[in-house]
Amino acid sequence: MFKKRHNIQEVEEGKYLSPKFDKNDLIPVVTTDFKSGDILMHGYMNIEALKKTIETKEAHYFSRSRKQIWHKGKISGFTQKVTEIRIDDDQDSIWLTVDIGDGSSCHVGYRSCFYRSIPLGKIDDGKKIKMKFEEKEKKFDPEKVYKGQSNPTKI
Amino acid sequence: MFKKRHNIQEVEEGKYLSPKFDKNDLIPVVTTDFKSGDILMHGYMNIEALKKTIETKEAHYFSRSRKQIWHKGKISGFTQKVTEIRIDDDQDSIWLTVDIGDGSSCHVGYRSCFYRSIPLGKIDDGKKIKMKFEEKEKKFDPEKVYKGQSNPTKI
Repeated sequence: MFKKRHNIQEVEEGKYLSPKFDKNDLIPVVTTDFKSGDILMHGYMNIEALKKTIETKEAHYFSRSRKQIWHKGKISGFTQKVTEIRIDDDQDSIWLTVDIGDGSSCHVGYRSCFYRSIPLGKIDDGKKIKMKFEEKEKKFDPEKVYKGQSNPTKI
Repeated sequence: MFKKRHNIQEVEEGKYLSPKFDKNDLIPVVTTDFKSGDILMHGYMNIEALKKTIETKEAHYFSRSRKQIWHKGKISGFTQKVTEIRIDDDQDSIWLTVDIGDGSSCHVGYRSCFYRSIPLGKIDDGKKIKMKFEEKEKKFDPEKVYKGQSNPTKI
């Protein structure tokens, strides 16, 4: 189903899908909201997750913390309906555009995982960098929705 | 300048920047166009690239192929003026929003690196997957702009 990566010309300018998976057999995936254009999350897929996403039109990832295929929204109900999949020039990263309706994407409870911004400008080496919350309110209570599940965040 | 990653609560809900760099001391970065919202590219930063991006407000990455800091646009002239930087819940990926004016981001000549889409639906195992070009025309001629430079794409 994938074309072998023969040469740079074919990978960059060709019509055939020739994805490059890394040493862990994963490819990074960025997911944006088809309405707002906001980035909802950054994840990874293995071949099986990519195939399932293409065929079912619902986002599947590979969970590095749980080491298994992850049908996004299976527990929370917040599935992601894929409206478009793109791949980049050297075919080593994927862009998913999805419809999550009025739902949420982040396990912490916010709509997007990227709910904090980093201030621009001179860094004072003596001080820690203080961020700003761009989303003020959680869309759901993760303690209720993910009751009994372990947190995927690792220190 | 970064807060130590003490616990999940602080990383996810705290105000302080505590980025997680991977085994190669890199963090993945997704860059979107502040006007269109399109993803322009997916790259990586090390600590120095992140610091330079914050301080100069121009995107700096770490080039994995050249193994060095990469001030985006230094050769092509297509620099990226950063309008916002965000970080995700577990602080292991970064979202840059940039202004590239009428410029381009992709070394192949397109505005975005994600110029091809993958068709959704049942995959025929016997056939290679054929993509669609979503950008029809190149914005510049890479052979002129990058004359004498090696192609960063690796097979």
